[in-house]
Amino acid sequence: MIVDIINKKRLGKELSYREIDKFFNGYLDGEIKDYQMSALLMAICINGMSDEEVFALTKVFIDSGDILEFDDIPGIKVDKHSTGGIGDKTTLIIAPIVASLGIPVIKMSGRGLGYTGGTIDKLESIKGYRIDLDDEDIVKQVKKIGVVVTGQTADLVPMDKAIYALRDVTGTVSSIPLIASSIMSKKIASGADKILIDIKVGNGALLTTKKDANELSRLMIEIGKIYKREVRTIISDMNVPLGTSIGNSLEVLEAIDILKGRETDNNLYDLCIELASNMVSMGKGIELGDAIKEVVDSLNRGHAYEKFLELVSAQGGKIDSLKVSDKVKELKASKSGKIKSINALELGKLSMALGAGRTNKEEKIDYEVGIKLEKLVNESVKKGDVLARVYYNKKFDMPEVNSIFEIV
Amino acid sequence: MIVDIINKKRLGKELSYREIDKFFNGYLDGEIKDYQMSALLMAICINGMSDEEVFALTKVFIDSGDILEFDDIPGIKVDKHSTGGIGDKTTLIIAPIVASLGIPVIKMSGRGLGYTGGTIDKLESIKGYRIDLDDEDIVKQVKKIGVVVTGQTADLVPMDKAIYALRDVTGTVSSIPLIASSIMSKKIASGADKILIDIKVGNGALLTTKKDANELSRLMIEIGKIYKREVRTIISDMNVPLGTSIGNSLEVLEAIDILKGRETDNNLYDLCIELASNMVSMGKGIELGDAIKEVVDSLNRGHAYEKFLELVSAQGGKIDSLKVSDKVKELKASKSGKIKSINALELGKLSMALGAGRTNKEEKIDYEVGIKLEKLVNESVKKGDVLARVYYNKKFDMPEVNSIFEIV
Repeated sequence: MIVDIINKKRLGKELSYREIDKFFNGYLDGEIKDYQMSALLMAICINGMSDEEVFALTKVFIDSGDILEFDDIPGIKVDKHSTGGIGDKTTLIIAPIVASLGIPVIKMSGRGLGYTGGTIDKLESIKGYRIDLDDEDIVKQVKKIGVVVTGQTADLVPMDKAIYALRDVTGTVSSIPLIASSIMSKKIASGADKILIDIKVGNGALLTTKKDANELSRLMIEIGKIYKREVRTIISDMNVPLGTSIGNSLEVLEAIDILKGRETDNNLYDLCIELASNMVSMGKGIELGDAIKEVVDSLNRGHAYEKFLELVSAQGGKIDSLKVSDKVKELKASKSGKIKSINALELGKLSMALGAGRTNKEEKIDYEVGIKLEKLVNESVKKGDVLARVYYNKKFDMPEVNSIFEIV
Repeated sequence: MIVDIINKKRLGKELSYREIDKFFNGYLDGEIKDYQMSALLMAICINGMSDEEVFALTKVFIDSGDILEFDDIPGIKVDKHSTGGIGDKTTLIIAPIVASLGIPVIKMSGRGLGYTGGTIDKLESIKGYRIDLDDEDIVKQVKKIGVVVTGQTADLVPMDKAIYALRDVTGTVSSIPLIASSIMSKKIASGADKILIDIKVGNGALLTTKKDANELSRLMIEIGKIYKREVRTIISDMNVPLGTSIGNSLEVLEAIDILKGRETDNNLYDLCIELASNMVSMGKGIELGDAIKEVVDSLNRGHAYEKFLELVSAQGGKIDSLKVSDKVKELKASKSGKIKSINALELGKLSMALGAGRTNKEEKIDYEVGIKLEKLVNESVKKGDVLARVYYNKKFDMPEVNSIFEIV
């Protein structure tokens, strides 16, 4: 009986593959109701899952939809996933870098639910950019230019889509077993040979402790073993935002700055080098040190930026169309001193208030708005200095500067 | 935000009165969805609630509907509630006993969801018995004959009705804070001056450990203090069924046997004496020992049975209409020995299979079916002896005798 399965997990007992299969497929079939699934998800959030349960859940997720295979495309396909954070535009930078070094990149990204748009939303701030390529389009484009960044095809892990939408509105997002099976099922179903995961930790991320990040890392690597996929993980900080901009057009423009080599001195540049080098190392089977050299070289020679322009153009985007609102407000330092911290979470909330993110799938994003940081952590500032510029289109409540910037 | 409240409880933090009020009333208003409420209920089940949270929830429950007052009726009104178990027909016996001793009894009972019918279902096996008395009918009847046993009026704690229906299908029934606030809100809203609670513990009950029963008892007494209601609790065993019969007509017939003094030698008789004496002790403000004497006297002189007949007749019931199916199967001992235990839970499941209980509110109950135990715990039996008779109307799977009776 359905309720018996929920009760079992409420009591912290281990569910069998059969029970997990029955419950989750029963949900997709409509036999099990939203309110029953959310009760089980909450019990999983609090009581956890054994590794065996996570493996079972991942299998049930994968089996719910198509499994893509890109055997036609020569080379080892390396995919990358980030658990998400404020100002994360790494995909826009890494995909062209890695592709410019001859490794085929097929990146299927999601829309954002939360403080900022997802990679797909950011790319849509480029007019004309198509995010709905089908399998055939994907293979054709990768064969031609070596890279594609598009939305998920409809039949890729439909169960994850259904469950994620429910988790989002029931306080059941922050669960390591659920995060692990959600991400890994999508990566495995989308045909990657090797997988790099960027796990964010901090107040602007899903996970707030290093311990949780380590556990998620371990679990993903274990799932990878079952499906014979090499999985590497990087644990990166999300207490401060990544780079200097938050918003959709603004983030694409920042990605272009990095690709053009204009910005090399911040946490975004460093993380992109780390992620891209690991993908290259996995894709080519070379040492990380050698991969780093190749990555930096591609950036310095402009190969990565050329590949980015090729990508945008191949998918129909007009790069000149990027537009940022001309309505600007400034956040100024209330005193002189050194910036001790910048609160990623508060910036996320401001981004939301501006309309750069969405709370439900139907909401429209304003691509033109966002925040540009003018000063970063450890910089010295004088009272009255502009710390950040806020680009807006509609009325919003300007936050207290001290709720975002801690000056000591 | 709604999800913030769920997240707070997921993390085991204490909710404020404001948050509880907002969430639960938001649910009644339709603003908060079933799937969000079930997630919160599961978090409460696993992480518990502080006393303050339980008091807040009880208040929100009580405030959701009418609060009855029976000041017109002289005397101290004592109500009794049982947390439910297999074969529990105590209300049918106790209400007339207590009323026969001059204490006004207003008992509003529920239908059963689960293994057997509730008190109201049992009474409906008497043709014509009305269970839909309104406030006016109740006062009139209690003034005339001193007792009424009817269904809950529609506006008595409507929030509990809504929440209970959801708990039942989401594995969130077994929570001490939720049980305490559900029961106590109904007892307080229904105008009782003093309240006796029969807390069942065992494999056939909601609570399976003495520790949980003690905690529920403590919590109910504390809630009572806030509303200035004296609360007494009795913790009684539910590892074996109560009395000898399970089913609807069968249980009414057994109640009549007890009221007529035909049965005095089993756990049902003992519990009825204990419960009735406590109610009399509370209602009259006398010592328990003296109350016991009055209760036994009322049974022996036939006063309690007379009051039962008065009650049935006042509510339109035809006592001669009680009917038990004439299709009978026997469960026979598979070996000689002594009965070590009788599994209440397995009997409950059999009762359900016969059609004596219901799994959803729409299901119809078959009043004529059930189980009559012919041998009880500690009795010696010979191989082939009839241990129980099963009264049925439709096809069912007869269980293994050893799954119910343990003979050693």
